[in-house]
Formats: sequence, structure tokens, C-alpha cells
Amino acid sequence: MVRVVDINCDMGESFGRYTLGQDGLIVKFISSANVACGFHAGDPIVMDETVRLVAENGIGCGAHPGFPDLLGFGRREMMLSSREIRASVIYQLGALSGFAGRYGIRLQHVKPHGALYNMAARDYRVARAVAEAVACFDHRLILLCPAGSEMARAGREVGLCSASEVFADRAYESDGTLVRRSEPGSVIDHPDEVAERVLGIVMHGRVRTRDGGELKVSPDSICIHGDTPGAPALAERIRKVLLDFGVSVEPLGGFLRC
Amino acid sequence: MVRVVDINCDMGESFGRYTLGQDGLIVKFISSANVACGFHAGDPIVMDETVRLVAENGIGCGAHPGFPDLLGFGRREMMLSSREIRASVIYQLGALSGFAGRYGIRLQHVKPHGALYNMAARDYRVARAVAEAVACFDHRLILLCPAGSEMARAGREVGLCSASEVFADRAYESDGTLVRRSEPGSVIDHPDEVAERVLGIVMHGRVRTRDGGELKVSPDSICIHGDTPGAPALAERIRKVLLDFGVSVEPLGGFLRC
Amino acid sequence: MVRVVDINCDMGESFGRYTLGQDGLIVKFISSANVACGFHAGDPIVMDETVRLVAENGIGCGAHPGFPDLLGFGRREMMLSSREIRASVIYQLGALSGFAGRYGIRLQHVKPHGALYNMAARDYRVARAVAEAVACFDHRLILLCPAGSEMARAGREVGLCSASEVFADRAYESDGTLVRRSEPGSVIDHPDEVAERVLGIVMHGRVRTRDGGELKVSPDSICIHGDTPGAPALAERIRKVLLDFGVSVEPLGGFLRC
Amino acid sequence: MVRVVDINCDMGESFGRYTLGQDGLIVKFISSANVACGFHAGDPIVMDETVRLVAENGIGCGAHPGFPDLLGFGRREMMLSSREIRASVIYQLGALSGFAGRYGIRLQHVKPHGALYNMAARDYRVARAVAEAVACFDHRLILLCPAGSEMARAGREVGLCSASEVFADRAYESDGTLVRRSEPGSVIDHPDEVAERVLGIVMHGRVRTRDGGELKVSPDSICIHGDTPGAPALAERIRKVLLDFGVSVEPLGGFLRC
Repeated sequence: MVRVVDINCDMGESFGRYTLGQDGLIVKFISSANVACGFHAGDPIVMDETVRLVAENGIGCGAHPGFPDLLGFGRREMMLSSREIRASVIYQLGALSGFAGRYGIRLQHVKPHGALYNMAARDYRVARAVAEAVACFDHRLILLCPAGSEMARAGREVGLCSASEVFADRAYESDGTLVRRSEPGSVIDHPDEVAERVLGIVMHGRVRTRDGGELKVSPDSICIHGDTPGAPALAERIRKVLLDFGVSVEPLGGFLRC
Repeated sequence: MVRVVDINCDMGESFGRYTLGQDGLIVKFISSANVACGFHAGDPIVMDETVRLVAENGIGCGAHPGFPDLLGFGRREMMLSSREIRASVIYQLGALSGFAGRYGIRLQHVKPHGALYNMAARDYRVARAVAEAVACFDHRLILLCPAGSEMARAGREVGLCSASEVFADRAYESDGTLVRRSEPGSVIDHPDEVAERVLGIVMHGRVRTRDGGELKVSPDSICIHGDTPGAPALAERIRKVLLDFGVSVEPLGGFLRC
Repeated sequence: MVRVVDINCDMGESFGRYTLGQDGLIVKFISSANVACGFHAGDPIVMDETVRLVAENGIGCGAHPGFPDLLGFGRREMMLSSREIRASVIYQLGALSGFAGRYGIRLQHVKPHGALYNMAARDYRVARAVAEAVACFDHRLILLCPAGSEMARAGREVGLCSASEVFADRAYESDGTLVRRSEPGSVIDHPDEVAERVLGIVMHGRVRTRDGGELKVSPDSICIHGDTPGAPALAERIRKVLLDFGVSVEPLGGFLRC
Repeated sequence: MVRVVDINCDMGESFGRYTLGQDGLIVKFISSANVACGFHAGDPIVMDETVRLVAENGIGCGAHPGFPDLLGFGRREMMLSSREIRASVIYQLGALSGFAGRYGIRLQHVKPHGALYNMAARDYRVARAVAEAVACFDHRLILLCPAGSEMARAGREVGLCSASEVFADRAYESDGTLVRRSEPGSVIDHPDEVAERVLGIVMHGRVRTRDGGELKVSPDSICIHGDTPGAPALAERIRKVLLDFGVSVEPLGGFLRC
């Protein structure tokens, strides 16, 4: 048996004069990129450069649509109607696709960003609007979301192939949700601990929760973060530990069966 | 011999709570729509509704990309680099295409908006950046621009099919440029005068200039404006006068030979 | 005994090319204006013109700060931290004050807009952040809010003078909250009915609720809306009916005792 | 005779999730800050924190208004009418003043940012609009601008006190204008060279130009840049070399005579 998993990371989060992340480094260690689409981060030039980088490195190109809130980096919940969500997601998918076409690639997946991701994970109405937008834009797109979430359910209902992800560097509650960023211990930054968690997730199908229990997981993708100073080194470490244990790291589109 | 001409009009210029234009009425009388893409006007819901309206009425769907300046309605010149122009245009074409796909249609043409249109008409660098963006997004798109402009030249150079337009309700200088909006007499609003001009343009290939001379024209499309109170009636009048004189009104994509 | 009441209305909600409301007409019939500050509506030129209009007509000038969401017209709830709310409100009050200074007037009051108003009315944390921002900007400002709301409570706590308002053309639930805009009958648009309600409110201190009951009210100000076609006529009618019954219509700042 | 000069630096250029500059370090070495006002950079929270930092360090607080172009960081020229410029500047001055009031300080000066600065330096119409806005907002504000510029002229005409500045780390043409950023050698980044230039400017009243000639200068303020990695060290170096040569570094408002 061959184990295979995807590593996904947000990319293209710079904006104009503002640089965020170390995309040029991190792209070497991941297999799928979630590219910001200009609403919560990213701008046309950043998107163009990011898609080119993704294409040159042969990794999966995903859209990372968010709320229209650059100031809040898409992390503030906004109460949008289903129509507003649908139209906003289609707009962002279309915009990113323009650049994908330029570099001869197709979008592989969609992963909502920040507050939109969190709301779609737990709120069926939001999840459904996101899933409908993705399906109507291109029904071959993979919806990347938490296992067992409302988003996974909505994706299934509209006929999308969905992939599940686990966060390598975020603490989990016993119910499978992420510990909120505002709470202490929500982000795990020690490389050894992250590497150990990744192995536990991929090799044993489990991750320890904040209260000391264990969560069963079987992710298609490991999510890592790219906007911390040590992110490239951490990504390299995670990739190496997986390869060392015989796990192949590949883009979702290459191995996912729906 | 059968005469045929296109009538184009800007559409989808509303934004959120703000309504502009009478798209539902005007769509009945035109054959091609220039749809705002969210930078100078339009938003995802407005774009979705506008493309649906265009698709339902079977007219040509064009992208109307502009400067990222909602406050100035894209009418203020901005000094963007060629890279910025290219990326901005690709972004907007992609975004609009997302909605076109939803309604089973393809984009027919691209016509830059406002200050971007004016700059691309006279400045080769800007024109070239616009043309390159359009060609790299989809080389089958028609570039709609003033005859003899730098935009027409740049379009030709990059292998695009371009269509020429004349404004039905704007006064011309003797050099073929438009009389600036800030000057008196720049907009012709009497329906009789507009109708007479349109006939002169289409039947005789000429339009009177501000200084009393005549300009030779041979447009593929007549541009009308939709954001004035009497616009729908004027559009109906223009269409009727053309039909009465045996001129067929059809979308550019149906008759243009490149 | 002399009865006196204020009539307040939102103003300055245009933006760039987009015109909303009939400020030049409605200003004749109201005594206090809530001027948009550029976040949910309004722009620097619109603010300048609106403040000039307010100053020339000698009515009270209020700030109408909202969420940074032009697309949603400030009507979509956004989850902002208290710091974000405070800073956003101070920014908007400052910006508007710049124009007030130009025309030799001072701001009279502050009334949050849309979703910020609704959230501050029911959520103490939001209310407190708004009230603190107002008090720290200028403690002499009047906070205009629903009677008995969390906003009124927070205003009191930080030492602000608050004024209560009743909506002339909005239906009320039996608990004193507004019937949501998305529900039928939420907006009352028949002038006779609105006029009758205003009289009931001012002369008898009560307003009928949706379920047929009655709500006791004793407002300092009557809120009317300016963005409907018949708004100026309705405002004129309300003012006239009040004057006919001997009620004086004056700016809040002139009669409120704190 | 006592020599005294101001050192000014842009501050508060972060935005939301994006951090720019090292304000907490650089504030120790300068005497006046130009604080971004939310149009080209800065947001309400950043402005609040920046003004607090400025107030705590007892340096002069200046407004740094720019074009409404966050994406272009205010560095792209935009064709605004005089009315648009005036209103935009008043808006930004007002917004920043709101925070100044919170920390018990007054604004000391105004220095336009980026493309607005460059245009106001050379184009009298733009300069006049900026100067009128500043004068009508608060005629005691100092206008910080290049010596001999159209901005200095316009400031004088409207009765403002203006201060002249020289850039420590930017190369000059022989006509006194800055070498454009896009050209090689436009930015001087070697600390020794910058320090030497500063001494030449302050002690001898001259600065070498790109073509090898010399420019006579007599600045009230030395402008340094804060958004490069070595900026704080460079600022410290400049301050030290001035103090070593007996030059006092003080906020403009303390020594300028108009």
C-alpha cells in the first residue's frame, strides 16, 4: 500500500506595497496552493505572479475566496445573504481563472478563507451557497474543507468532490473544531511538536485535542501556514518527515477519488 | 447589399445600494452590452444579474474593464504601469467570465471604460497593455475601440479582431476625438438630432464635427449611453430609425469579419 | 406647556457617480441630519456639500458612522473588536468634523448607521465601544439611539447625553425592536398612516405594534427616511401635522436637558 | 548662533494584517512624524496607535494625506479636480485630528504623500487645492514641502507657514527635483554617504546632484525613510552626526518663524 497526502498552504496574500508570506520558498515544499483572489488579500499583480509560481512548480492551484474585507484580512465574520456569497465566490473564482488560463493550468480546488471558511464549516446556509457557487462555476473543482463539516455535506449535495484537511499547526477542540486564534495555545509553533502531530495524523489517523483526548482523522491534505517567519523551514520539515516515513506528497487532484 | 450595424451600451453600472441606468429597458434595443466588472462600477450581484439579462435577451456580452476607482467611476486618469494594466484587465475579464459561464454564454468583446478607454485610444503604451491582456485571456475576443486609435493599432498588432465605434450622442472634434465632457455641447441630447446623426453615420458614413466640418466614419457599432433619464426612449428611436432605413441591428460577433 | 420634538433624517448618502436621496428638498423639513462619513456611504465631496447644506439651513449636524462596507451600505453585520469599533468611529467623527469646521458649525450628535446601530442597540459590548469613541472624541456630543437600548445605557455610563428616537415609518414589535426590513409590513409608506403614527407618538406617547398592542414612547426625535421617492412630501406632511398640533420642531441640541 | 533642524519621517503606514516600517524604533530618532490617514496607507487602529506613539515621544504630529489608492500606495498619479483634492485633504486631516485630540495633542504640520506630493510640488493647481484645504482646516498648520516648489508658493499665498525639506537618502537632479524612483541611483542607501550628505546639507547648505553639480539648500527639515530594513540605524546615525556637530534636532513647530 502506498500512502499519499497533499500539503496545502495559503499563498498570494501580499497586496500592493505590502508583502506577506514567503511564497517563493514555501512553494518548494507544498503540493497545493490556496491563492487569495483580491477580496481579503491579493491584487491582480500578486495573483498573476502567484499563479505563475504555482504553475512553474507544478503544484495544484486552488482558489481561496474570502469576504470583501481587506482591512480585516477576511477574518471578521460578515452577514452576507446566500446570493451575495454565491456571487462573491463566482467573481473570485473567475478572476483567478483568468490568470490560470494565462499560464496554461486549470484550477484544482477551492478553499474558502478565514471567516468564510469558519462560517461555511459550521453553518449549512453559508456552506450551501459556497458549494453552489463552486459547482456552477466548474463542477470538477475539489472543495477543500474540514472532514464532517457542513461544507463537506453541502459539497456532497451539489455533486462536488470534496477533500478533507487537518491543520498541522493549530490546536483542536474535542469536537473537531479549531481552538480560536484568540485563545492561548491555539497555534502550535514548535517544529518538533508540529512534525510529531503530522506523523500521528498521517500514520495513525489521530490528533491530540486540547483537553488531552484524541480525534480520529483521515485527511486528504495537511494545511500549513505560510505567514510566520519560520514557515518555510517548518514546511520543509513536515515534507521531509512524511517522505522519511514513506508518505508521498502530491497534489489533491492527482490521487483523490470521488 | 445588406447593411448591418451593432448598437452597444454600457450596462451593469449599479453598485450595492446604488442603482444606475435602466438596464432592463435598454437591453431591448441594443445588440451588445459592455458590462462593468467591479472596479469602476458593478459588484458581483449586479454582474450576475446583468449577464443573466444579457443572456436572456440574446445580445452580445462584452467586458467593460476600468480603473480601480469606484469613487471616480473610472473617469479619472490614473498612471498605471503596463503590468498593472495587464493584470487589472485580466482580473476583470476573468471575473465577468465566471458569470458568463453560469448562463451558458461566452464573452463577445472587450471595451475599456472611461479614462482607461480614453488613454488607450491615444497612448500606445496603455493600448498595448490592454490589447495584450485581452489577447492572452482569449484571443477570440473582439476589441471595441475608436477607428484609427492607438487601441485599434495595438489590437491589430497582437492579433485581435477589432471593431470600431462611433458615439451617437457625443460631439466630435475635427480630429476624430470626442469633445471633452466638461465642455458645452459635448453631449447631444435632443433625440431628433441624435437620430439624424446616426443615419448620417450609418447611411452616408459621415458625422458633423463641432467646427462645422465632416468626419468620415464607417463604424461597426454605434455607442449609446444608458445612464440618462431618456436613454431607453432614445435607444428605441435609434433602433427604429435604423430598421426603417433597412439597416439590420446585430451583435458584433455575428457579422464582423477579421 | 410647549411640546417640542426633533425630526432627524439620514443625509449625504450619495457616493461619487451615485446619487441617493433628495437632500436639498428634505433638509427644509427636518431639524437634525445624520451625515454619512464615507465608510458605508458618502465621500469627501458629498460630505462637504452635505455639511454646507446643513449649515445653511441651520439644522443640527450629526455624524452617522457605519461599518466599512460600502458594498453592503453598512447594513451587513460585521464582527469587529471593540478596538476596531472605537477607532472606526473616531476616524469618522474626525473626518466629518473637518467639514463642520469649514462651515463654522460644531457636530451636534452621533447616530450609528445600519448594522452598527442595530448591534449597538442590543449588544452592550458594541454599544460601549461606540459610546466610548463618542465620549473621547467630544463628550458634549449627543448620542441618538432607541430608548431603553444598550446604546442608551452605555451612553449614560460614559457620561454622554443621549436622546431617544422613534421611527415614523417603521413597524415595531411588541418588545420595542423594529420589524426586520426583510419582513412584509416592516416599512409603512402610506403618508396618512405615518402622519397618524407620528401624532400618536408625540401627542399620546404611544405607537401601535405589529401584533396590535401598544408601546409607550416618549421620543426626543422622530426619525424619517430620505431615500424613498416620496420622502420629501412625507417629511413636509409630518412637519406640518406637528406644527398644526402645536408641536415645535427643533434641533436636539436646542432643547435636550441631560 | 544655534543651528536647529527637524527630522521628519513617514509613519503609520501599516494596514490591517499588513505591517510596514518600524515605527516604534524610528520614533526615537526623529522630531516630526508624517502620519498616513487611511487613503494610501494606515487604518483607524494604526492611526490611533501611531498618534499615541507620537504623543508619548513628544515629537511633532503631521498629517500625511494621499490619493485614495491603497493598492498603489498613493504613488500613482491620479487626475483629481481641485474640489476633489480639497475635500479629500480636509477629510484626511479631520480623521487624523480625531486621534490627535484623543491623546491631547494638536497637529503640527501637513505633508502630502507620494504622487500627491510630487504633483503639488510641480503643478500649481494641485498645490493650490492642497494649500486651501490645509488653510481652511486650520490655518496654524505648517505646510512641509520642497523649497521653491509650487506647493511652497501656494502655501504662502493662502497664508500658511511653510517649511522646506531635503531628502537625506534621495538623489537630486540639478533642477532641484528628485531623481525618479524608477531610475538607478535614485535612493542612496549607504549610511556613510547619507550621513555625509546630511552634514553637507545642514552645515554647508548644499547637496551634490546627480550630474556632479551642487544645489544650494537651507532646509527646515531633513526627510528620512522608515520603510527599509536599516532605517532605524540610519535615523540614529543621522541624528547622532547632527548632534555631534552641534545641531539641535527639534520639531518644526518649536523653531519655525513665519
